[in-house]
Amino acid sequence: MQDLDKLCIHTVTTKPWSVEIAVENYARCGVSGITVWRDALANRDPATVGRSIRDAGLQVVSLCRGGFFPSVDANARARALEDNLCAIDEAAALGAPLIVLVCGADPGQPLADSRAQIAEGILAAAGRAREAGVKLAIEPLHPMYADAKSAVNTMQSANDMCDQIDLPNVGVAVDVYHIWWDPNAIGEIARCGAAERIFAFHVCDWRVPTRDFLLDRALMGEGCIDIPHFRNAVEQAGFTGFNEVEIFSTHYWSTDQSSYLQKIIQAYKEHV
Amino acid sequence: MQDLDKLCIHTVTTKPWSVEIAVENYARCGVSGITVWRDALANRDPATVGRSIRDAGLQVVSLCRGGFFPSVDANARARALEDNLCAIDEAAALGAPLIVLVCGADPGQPLADSRAQIAEGILAAAGRAREAGVKLAIEPLHPMYADAKSAVNTMQSANDMCDQIDLPNVGVAVDVYHIWWDPNAIGEIARCGAAERIFAFHVCDWRVPTRDFLLDRALMGEGCIDIPHFRNAVEQAGFTGFNEVEIFSTHYWSTDQSSYLQKIIQAYKEHV
Repeated sequence: MQDLDKLCIHTVTTKPWSVEIAVENYARCGVSGITVWRDALANRDPATVGRSIRDAGLQVVSLCRGGFFPSVDANARARALEDNLCAIDEAAALGAPLIVLVCGADPGQPLADSRAQIAEGILAAAGRAREAGVKLAIEPLHPMYADAKSAVNTMQSANDMCDQIDLPNVGVAVDVYHIWWDPNAIGEIARCGAAERIFAFHVCDWRVPTRDFLLDRALMGEGCIDIPHFRNAVEQAGFTGFNEVEIFSTHYWSTDQSSYLQKIIQAYKEHV
Repeated sequence: MQDLDKLCIHTVTTKPWSVEIAVENYARCGVSGITVWRDALANRDPATVGRSIRDAGLQVVSLCRGGFFPSVDANARARALEDNLCAIDEAAALGAPLIVLVCGADPGQPLADSRAQIAEGILAAAGRAREAGVKLAIEPLHPMYADAKSAVNTMQSANDMCDQIDLPNVGVAVDVYHIWWDPNAIGEIARCGAAERIFAFHVCDWRVPTRDFLLDRALMGEGCIDIPHFRNAVEQAGFTGFNEVEIFSTHYWSTDQSSYLQKIIQAYKEHV
């Protein structure tokens, strides 16, 4: 059982709510932080949204998401870089200190090529991010997303890429959903922490059986992930930031979001 | 382009066919080997099936599948071991020199416990297998199956477990579907080959997007896996066995199986 000082929720978790309604409800229920998805900023001024979040007593933890750098098409890669530069400007206006990167992959080329283009894209964006005071977090994605969402699929790969890029504002977002299965994950979390590169920690659970590749994440405690084991590992590795609840779930999105928020808070207290 | 000397097909690939019909059609089309799934042996004498396969000019490559060792329940583990001993007897009667192991996992316990129970189960079965002249191949399964199908999810884990078990009749089945995303896979294939532990090589393709966790495998060339890259790696590592086509596909199972077999052969010639 624990208090809510480190509880952050991603806007996508309560997707049926606008960012304004989410902020109001999160604040009222004692949630401490919010990670804003870019779709939640559509037709809004990020600076205004950022002020309203802080006025409600919440902290802006990060902006989700940048990335999707690779493509066999050089023009598409250039457009992806432009979009990441826009995201950096949005993060700065919002007051988000971090952008989470879903790095991307193009199934039309070898994964090694996608990985090289990811490193290239991050390097090309990192200067603007530094000037804006924004960090970039590589989020290793579960290997079931290696075809089209991310060619970075393990903590080891994320650490290797950070070593290669070697910039203090480029680190890793650790999400239990993506790495729980990996026998090397705990060791690589320690490696990541030793390099002071754990920039974020995301939680949810793996439903058994999982019925959809993307939209069937479970509430903490409903699945088979030992979340405290990973929370302990990131904290042992020096991480002191938020525990961010990021759940994509057609099931939960179809339910009453206020009751769902109560369930999230209860699950957080019991299973994180 | 290549001949069919090393083409083996799993009975499950053409699941609508009985093993008798599969043997007849595979042989007529020049397929060289067959891997028999245990469900195809239901209500049949394995020795008789084995003879009919050899009489048709096909080689029995392996029996699929043993494994599923872990459980939080000790009685269930004992039953699983019994079932594996039965599978060994079936393989011996069939004349299959190899059993492929889908090792299992119990989401109700830590993966480390499941892994320990897998090693324990294999060790307990290996003596009977040796006496029967049957090898056992650990098949690392894609991490999306870590919840309930296998706690061994990378070539590295499979190699580590073989090191731990350290018996000459326990090795690895390399399946491109499970390992294609892994940046360590090629190095671990070399490690596996150096230990003379590559016992099987399975091919199919990863559909983009994949629509089902289990039953949406693609025909070689339809997806994003560079199959020749992996075939080259196992052959460089000393493997001289069959290339086994193992496809679970509700789509292909719903089509005419004779036409499908022609497509498999064409895809094998062009993309393996």
